[in-house]
Amino acid sequence: MSAGASGARRIDGKAFAAGLRARVAGQVAAFHQQAGRVPGLAVVLVGEDPASQVYVRNKGRETVAAGMASFEHRLSADTPTATLLDLIARLNADDRVDGILVQLPLPKGVDEALVLAAIDPAKDVDGFHVVNAGRLALGQPGLVPCTPLGCLMLLEDTLGDLAGLEAVVIGRSAIVGKPMAQLLLSRHCTVTLAHSRTRDLPAVCRRADIVVAAVGRPELVRADWIKPGATVIDVGINRVSTPDGKTRLVGDVAFDDVEAVAGALTPVPGGVGPMTIACLLANTMQAAEARARTP
Amino acid sequence: MSAGASGARRIDGKAFAAGLRARVAGQVAAFHQQAGRVPGLAVVLVGEDPASQVYVRNKGRETVAAGMASFEHRLSADTPTATLLDLIARLNADDRVDGILVQLPLPKGVDEALVLAAIDPAKDVDGFHVVNAGRLALGQPGLVPCTPLGCLMLLEDTLGDLAGLEAVVIGRSAIVGKPMAQLLLSRHCTVTLAHSRTRDLPAVCRRADIVVAAVGRPELVRADWIKPGATVIDVGINRVSTPDGKTRLVGDVAFDDVEAVAGALTPVPGGVGPMTIACLLANTMQAAEARARTP
Repeated sequence: MSAGASGARRIDGKAFAAGLRARVAGQVAAFHQQAGRVPGLAVVLVGEDPASQVYVRNKGRETVAAGMASFEHRLSADTPTATLLDLIARLNADDRVDGILVQLPLPKGVDEALVLAAIDPAKDVDGFHVVNAGRLALGQPGLVPCTPLGCLMLLEDTLGDLAGLEAVVIGRSAIVGKPMAQLLLSRHCTVTLAHSRTRDLPAVCRRADIVVAAVGRPELVRADWIKPGATVIDVGINRVSTPDGKTRLVGDVAFDDVEAVAGALTPVPGGVGPMTIACLLANTMQAAEARARTP
Repeated sequence: MSAGASGARRIDGKAFAAGLRARVAGQVAAFHQQAGRVPGLAVVLVGEDPASQVYVRNKGRETVAAGMASFEHRLSADTPTATLLDLIARLNADDRVDGILVQLPLPKGVDEALVLAAIDPAKDVDGFHVVNAGRLALGQPGLVPCTPLGCLMLLEDTLGDLAGLEAVVIGRSAIVGKPMAQLLLSRHCTVTLAHSRTRDLPAVCRRADIVVAAVGRPELVRADWIKPGATVIDVGINRVSTPDGKTRLVGDVAFDDVEAVAGALTPVPGGVGPMTIACLLANTMQAAEARARTP
């Protein structure tokens, strides 16, 4: 963490993620010694979406860098759902595979819900399976979606114990907003879930000690939405055009503006972004350990 | 609903529940005509807890009154978990059974989590199964716990469209508070989940258009916690001693006090209480219809 000119701490997700990856690599080595094998992550990519190809390449590289086995399965965009379900069944049964990740979005012809539901919840390192969503809701151990898990780690690293803090999560997606609210509740925050139908979003945000913005609207959150000293986590990654005809990445938070008011905040890029793959590795490690415990 | 002296509407859960039971009875009759059988609810009671015996008797009576089949299974308090799992397996396989309810609490020797997990989610009319909790969290169709479902029905009957309203749920149990928050979110409320670790509970409540109290603390919620005109739903049922040595039932809300400020509120008894069994019948009807659709 570094102090900005204004005094707001800039939460360095890149550095935290590097540390987390190193800790996972240490756990991988210990697991290898005990179990006689390394944890394995299978990534399934269907079709040729350029962004998805970049993500899958990065995931594979980081998996190998952490000492794990990476299994990549690339299928053409016209792959029938049944073929994909067969592959998932094989990966579920494959003892070398601890985590299964199906890169989203899937091509239009594929029944995405059916494919995700076919993944063994014990290998569901994305945490999207209905059983893992249920476990999170019921406070049972399970696999938690990577992005909100990364946000929680940054918050606890920044603030320590979160109990009793007022948290506002903006955005109620199944992948970020809703599990984020559950995680903050598990840490005993008073949690408000706000969204597009919220009547006075600035006023709701102003009561928060913690704001997590996950709506996908460029620089929506402004300085006057933020209680002085609050911690702001920006999950948004939006590409916007600049006057010179180029593009740049901005978050859901107007960084320069909010930096003057917040106590700490994540930049975009370099905040939440790097945490997602690091948490994917942590989830794969967790899945491997849980599978090793249950014969 | 009737207007109190103060102008606050008293939400009549008893009358609403009677109407709901009548609607379910109509659906049962139609189902009988189409499917050639009536929906069935199996209730499992282990041990001799007097309160549980009363609940089970009432459930059986209401089930029959709605025209459904009621199957009661009473087992001794020392029943092994394995025997109970066998019974659940038989009920799962029994085509006459659309809903399975295991009366809680189970005796200490029984593995409650294992028993609840064994119920087919399609027959889980209590909505406690991890798969139904996950479906609710992900916004998928499923069976929802009866008490929060009843609260939602009373709220929609009182207020109509809930979109954009500020709702505060006090209490984060897996059975009431958490699913209540999910249901209010599904109706597009801005939802805050407050609990024992919330720092200024009165202030948090004062921002709410809807307060749902589900903490089990007698008359915790006072008039100065309530925004004038707010709707207050009282899930608490607490037995307290009176100065004359008798006992009486009170909710989590100080009714006489809050009635002067609220726009509408549920009494205890006669508010949320009667809704729970009525929603159990509605869930059983829903389960029967869903099972009839999926061969």
